[in-house]
Amino acid sequence: MNLEKMGKQAKQAARAMAQTSSAARIEALQAIAGEIERSQEAILQENAVDVVDGKAKGLSAAMVDRLLLNPARIAGIVADLRSVAALPDPVGEVMEQSVLPNGLRVRKVRVPLGVLGVIYEARPNVTADVAGLALKSGNCVILRGGSETMRSNRALVTAIRTGLEAAGLPQDAIQWIDDPDRAHVLGLLQLDSYVDLIIPRGGAGLHDFCRKNSRIPVITGGIGICHLFVDESANLAASLPVIENAKIQRPTVCNALDTVLVHEKVAERFIPALVERLAGVEVTFRGDPETMRILAGRFTEVTQAAGPQDFDTEWLSLVLGLRVVNGLDEAVEHITAHSTGHSDGILTEDKVNAARFQAVVDSAAVYVNASTRFTDGSQFGLGAEVAISTQRVHARGPMGLRELTTYKWLVEGDYTARS
Amino acid sequence: MNLEKMGKQAKQAARAMAQTSSAARIEALQAIAGEIERSQEAILQENAVDVVDGKAKGLSAAMVDRLLLNPARIAGIVADLRSVAALPDPVGEVMEQSVLPNGLRVRKVRVPLGVLGVIYEARPNVTADVAGLALKSGNCVILRGGSETMRSNRALVTAIRTGLEAAGLPQDAIQWIDDPDRAHVLGLLQLDSYVDLIIPRGGAGLHDFCRKNSRIPVITGGIGICHLFVDESANLAASLPVIENAKIQRPTVCNALDTVLVHEKVAERFIPALVERLAGVEVTFRGDPETMRILAGRFTEVTQAAGPQDFDTEWLSLVLGLRVVNGLDEAVEHITAHSTGHSDGILTEDKVNAARFQAVVDSAAVYVNASTRFTDGSQFGLGAEVAISTQRVHARGPMGLRELTTYKWLVEGDYTARS
Repeated sequence: MNLEKMGKQAKQAARAMAQTSSAARIEALQAIAGEIERSQEAILQENAVDVVDGKAKGLSAAMVDRLLLNPARIAGIVADLRSVAALPDPVGEVMEQSVLPNGLRVRKVRVPLGVLGVIYEARPNVTADVAGLALKSGNCVILRGGSETMRSNRALVTAIRTGLEAAGLPQDAIQWIDDPDRAHVLGLLQLDSYVDLIIPRGGAGLHDFCRKNSRIPVITGGIGICHLFVDESANLAASLPVIENAKIQRPTVCNALDTVLVHEKVAERFIPALVERLAGVEVTFRGDPETMRILAGRFTEVTQAAGPQDFDTEWLSLVLGLRVVNGLDEAVEHITAHSTGHSDGILTEDKVNAARFQAVVDSAAVYVNASTRFTDGSQFGLGAEVAISTQRVHARGPMGLRELTTYKWLVEGDYTARS
Repeated sequence: MNLEKMGKQAKQAARAMAQTSSAARIEALQAIAGEIERSQEAILQENAVDVVDGKAKGLSAAMVDRLLLNPARIAGIVADLRSVAALPDPVGEVMEQSVLPNGLRVRKVRVPLGVLGVIYEARPNVTADVAGLALKSGNCVILRGGSETMRSNRALVTAIRTGLEAAGLPQDAIQWIDDPDRAHVLGLLQLDSYVDLIIPRGGAGLHDFCRKNSRIPVITGGIGICHLFVDESANLAASLPVIENAKIQRPTVCNALDTVLVHEKVAERFIPALVERLAGVEVTFRGDPETMRILAGRFTEVTQAAGPQDFDTEWLSLVLGLRVVNGLDEAVEHITAHSTGHSDGILTEDKVNAARFQAVVDSAAVYVNASTRFTDGSQFGLGAEVAISTQRVHARGPMGLRELTTYKWLVEGDYTARS
């Protein structure tokens, strides 16, 4: 595994990719989709071995499920590649233009970011997703997948590179670190001569490791401690299904709800109703002292007093924190102290409070009267996403094709000198 | 010096700054400008001590000049603050908005980046420039100036904070590391809980140190090995003053010209004319073998054969590299190998070559028939600049007010759940 060599090849491929037409990149994605369809048998065979190995290593049922491919999931991967192919091309977009008083014509034009380093864990579909978004936007990638999916990824990358070749694009636009040694993650983070952006997709530990060890800019994200605040004026009956949706529609993902804050003026009515409803769909609760007082010994089988770390925990499961607050300010204070800046919202009929909440809460997505589950590239109309950023630099929230680009300034004069 | 405490104060000030109105920020910049005017005597006194100390320490005349303040320079600083105050406010700008099929109203709204860490060297005017741009765009800064300017910076920061207080904005929006110990630079780079972006302004060593040691995203830039390619079809008479301008108008800055590449078909005519003209304004030359052959022993007092590192040197002085190339491709190859991705250009009458050069050369600014000296926030119409980025992430080229912002997604529904 020669990372330096991979870096050089990626940089060279990036120069070629930057000159490709939109049509050529669409053709490549179509070719890759076709090649994955044709290679389905081989991919499923390799994946089956990964699954057997994973079970033998004692992977949890949830992890095995994330790892598993089947014909329906392959069809999903192929369909996603085709829909990414059809998205509007961000490359070449003129973002700003002007003619300066001295006659210089200045244009700010979108170009590919260059070389991405993507470090991810179990799911093999990420391999195809990332490749599709990167290639559509004219970028190259060095992929580093989880050790549990080595065989599945090898088969997928082979299909992707075959598709690239068939379409006449450089195979090295997609490279893959085919060695589970963790030292290569560190090696990738040091390749600052060749790699322009590191995108980790995984838990907090991976993000922290990347931030500490990378010489390359890192997109931090994917960790969501998400809040909904039920204001005094909220339509309580309408709030229940929104909270239920945010909590249970897909509890294992980053935009799932972790904590509900309830205005003290409606807490006595709302909290028992919420607990009763969500207990029916297997949610359990961690309540602050006031919540526990209100529940007064009811629902003891599903409720417990919140511990010191509970409001700083991303549950990723059917657990929900509950806290009573004395108003908007205390809700915002709680969110400022405990949110990871991913997705937070207010449920309210009060337009002034809604506007204040959106102004003051400093998260990637701030909601009024909606589920936090919408923070997602497809849901926001970006067509797809490569990651969800919770940092502030370069991109924030769902990162689609545009967020995989940069720009250059093109300036034309008439033998113009600066005076 | 408690950096952790400074970080906390900055973060808290950033929350307050994010809620300020455009008018309040304009008023603060006016108050700061007034306060610097009123404090002129004190600032000049402290600066005079810095200058005496600097001379005693053996600072070069150029460094002493960068360090020096006088009434005219203070007036310049004040005028710059007032013109930044008058620039359009990027904060609150709606960058994108849509109503999704499910009725969700989604807006992408520009907000301040948060807390900047700015590490710079001698010039005290940077203190006021950076403070002005940061405050105008709703940001807070922790400043770390050079040890040579400790007293001047202390006086300037005192005036700035007094102005902030007078305008009712948090003083901690501008903080300054008042201790020359270099360990604090490293400390600042590790403050990733509080600081959102590091902007180094200095030489390659500082940038490299920041990239290697920072847990916070770093804007790399400010190093320019800049090229102009004289194509076969260039108007040679018109090219001479453009090259002269790019080389000598301000040779010590990053957008000054370093290397001229000349098409072999015009080299015999153009190179002697160029050397003759620029030798008259004290430029000396490093020529590739073909250039030396063409000069054939003429101009020996100002020319020498280029050494192995010469085409990888940012001259920052009246030295110019010269190389003959066999056409556009070889020129691009040279630029790809030796440019720092700052500013490169072509001089040509051939529109096809101009377009190809702009497409293929991957630098922050790519010129046709203009001096590289235009890569500058004011020249590009941004009003001012906090730095010039040569990296690809977040911002590229001159960074003005917009480049000191990020955005958040504001989403409004009608108790909308995800299906």
